[in-house]
Amino acid sequence: MTYRSAGLFIIGTELTRGVIADKHCQLLANQLTRLGYHVERMVVVPDDGSIATVLSQAVERCDLLILTGGLGPTSDDLTRSVVAQLANVDLVRDQESFDRLYSRIGERIWGANEQQTMIPAGFVAIANPNGTAAGFRGTIQIDGREIVCIALPGPPREMDPMFYDEVLPYLANLAGHDSFDRSEYSTFLIPEAKLEELCRQASFNGLQWGTRFQDLKISLYLVGGSLEERTTMANRLKESVGPSLIADGDVSAASLLTDELLKRGETISCAESCTAGLAATLLTDQSGSSAWFWGGVSSYANEAKRTMLAVSQETLDTDGAVSERCAIEMAEGMRSRSQTHWAFSITGIAGPDGGSAQKPVGTVCFGFSGEGRASEAVTVRMSSYGRASVRRKAATVALLLMARYIDGCSLLDTVSKWQYI
Amino acid sequence: MTYRSAGLFIIGTELTRGVIADKHCQLLANQLTRLGYHVERMVVVPDDGSIATVLSQAVERCDLLILTGGLGPTSDDLTRSVVAQLANVDLVRDQESFDRLYSRIGERIWGANEQQTMIPAGFVAIANPNGTAAGFRGTIQIDGREIVCIALPGPPREMDPMFYDEVLPYLANLAGHDSFDRSEYSTFLIPEAKLEELCRQASFNGLQWGTRFQDLKISLYLVGGSLEERTTMANRLKESVGPSLIADGDVSAASLLTDELLKRGETISCAESCTAGLAATLLTDQSGSSAWFWGGVSSYANEAKRTMLAVSQETLDTDGAVSERCAIEMAEGMRSRSQTHWAFSITGIAGPDGGSAQKPVGTVCFGFSGEGRASEAVTVRMSSYGRASVRRKAATVALLLMARYIDGCSLLDTVSKWQYI
Repeated sequence: MTYRSAGLFIIGTELTRGVIADKHCQLLANQLTRLGYHVERMVVVPDDGSIATVLSQAVERCDLLILTGGLGPTSDDLTRSVVAQLANVDLVRDQESFDRLYSRIGERIWGANEQQTMIPAGFVAIANPNGTAAGFRGTIQIDGREIVCIALPGPPREMDPMFYDEVLPYLANLAGHDSFDRSEYSTFLIPEAKLEELCRQASFNGLQWGTRFQDLKISLYLVGGSLEERTTMANRLKESVGPSLIADGDVSAASLLTDELLKRGETISCAESCTAGLAATLLTDQSGSSAWFWGGVSSYANEAKRTMLAVSQETLDTDGAVSERCAIEMAEGMRSRSQTHWAFSITGIAGPDGGSAQKPVGTVCFGFSGEGRASEAVTVRMSSYGRASVRRKAATVALLLMARYIDGCSLLDTVSKWQYI
Repeated sequence: MTYRSAGLFIIGTELTRGVIADKHCQLLANQLTRLGYHVERMVVVPDDGSIATVLSQAVERCDLLILTGGLGPTSDDLTRSVVAQLANVDLVRDQESFDRLYSRIGERIWGANEQQTMIPAGFVAIANPNGTAAGFRGTIQIDGREIVCIALPGPPREMDPMFYDEVLPYLANLAGHDSFDRSEYSTFLIPEAKLEELCRQASFNGLQWGTRFQDLKISLYLVGGSLEERTTMANRLKESVGPSLIADGDVSAASLLTDELLKRGETISCAESCTAGLAATLLTDQSGSSAWFWGGVSSYANEAKRTMLAVSQETLDTDGAVSERCAIEMAEGMRSRSQTHWAFSITGIAGPDGGSAQKPVGTVCFGFSGEGRASEAVTVRMSSYGRASVRRKAATVALLLMARYIDGCSLLDTVSKWQYI
């Protein structure tokens, strides 16, 4: 049979008291939707056993039930017994889960933790690499209908890998997908609606895709098919947006650059005006960043550009602070001061004030300087969704373009495909 | 009667498809919990009318129902008719809502928008200052029980003010709170559990409180009582954590400092090591920041501290880069370079590597320099919840202490009450 209609059940009193926000619904709903499931409802209930009522109300309309939470060792944690009751089976010890937990906590397993190794009879345990509670999955017969039921622990760092590694492939199979391998990519600066459109255009052979917002990027998952097919689709996407906006794996714009610097054993510095330190902050997000990052200057005032970076008064007078000439002088001034292998600069109009017809808000100039290399500058005009957005995009652009410059690629060609950022 | 048990119903297919994350549940659950309501369940359903089933299943256990979404002008938007059906009344035009909308969109009201001015007969409309859909509230009789039902639009920028301005005072009253005035405060560096404990200790005369996480702070709302009572409780809180961790109104640590600079017409610069530009980024988050921010240096490498800030080799050799002496030299070097009225510095161990027994991860030194003022330095040892957390806290500490230094307050006294940050 095919399972089409899903219900999600999130258990946790800290959620219904508003102490923390639910992290699972969007992830689960997004992935299930991609697989062709219709999510009928998502229900959050406290740890008080009311999950029993809610579940029994849902079985009528759902043929897939996913529960998170309520698998802990305390008496509030009732998910196991509620599912066993619904399935009309006993709770039995899963020996593998027991052995695994025993090897970790020894004799302390007796007592509360022991129940964390129990699952409804006939169910299959799902190993939890990051916690003590095993998950489980199985089928329940109700009124002649077969319902799939999956229970996972609540903490995202336990739930997420269990879902991706075990549950998602299992569900893909149930939903009629032969294969459920997937590849992950990181996309930068592409608006969500645009990414969706690009995926539709590049899709073929029934490949599915999913996206997930992260801080300065959107993660893209291509699902199903062969690795070759997924790579082909990814290459089509990369071609349509030009290089550097879509990278393989789960990476940040900063790490693309700093990994390259680390590999080369080279150092960098940066001069920032409108971003005022944001790019430097990103370059030092990782531990060990002193290997590549020398330092930077936030040259906000024109005088700061002159005294700390040796930008000429003439450039400021004729071309202005937001100009390619100023960007180049900033990058060169920074590198001559720091003696790093590479330096870049950012100077632009973050808004909301300060724009003009010639240089509207969102206009940002970037300069690049390298040992024994001709300096380069480019200007990017970003659509402005507010000051914070322009600054975040500008820092990301600088990191991506710096990596291109180090690679010896044409920056103008690169940005020519970025009209929509 | 008193209403004690609440159900939240969030309607939107974009939510059950995982395109966007729900923003309402935590806010509503948190506020309702503060008022003494028990949130029985929070349910998210698509725009397909399944809200009718879910609602009828919930009325048995809930005596307060809050719905968001499904009030738009399209045929998917069924909240109005579902509630009218449940209440067993007709939909009628709310003349005030109609007139308000007519004054905004004129004759275009005829057609789809007209239904946005309809509410269940006997219900009260809730004005929507930011959109076309009015909300409504009223009571429903089911099996002799009275159930309160409130419907609000889905977009947070429409829902939030309607909830805070109209619904919350109404619910507070239902829950037996006489008055529902509230005061807002901004708290910095206080962990949530600690803030909760402090509020419990400082509470009196039945004042309620609520908190809301924002980027680098937690907003605190004191609710009920008179302004004098709320101020007294706030003053008790301020006393227990010392000044500067709790500020009146909705403000950021950066704006506390920059408002003061703007008022004085004075300028600032900063030298950052472990935060590498984060404080500078915060100082320039607002438009117009060139009025107070001259620029800064991210002196990550020791050589950057020497060449850009004139930190002495001797200091680096004897006291090390993470020392009060180095912090003072950084701040003084920054100010002598920039000629700003004020300068501060941050140098510390963000981790996860680089800590020692003497200077564990989370040890951060801050230096302060001002025109005609003796320089000062303090060391703060933060509990480390990871590199990003140490860096964010360090930047916040620098901004708060800089404001204290400008005020002429003792920095040592200030930080002496900060053991738990």
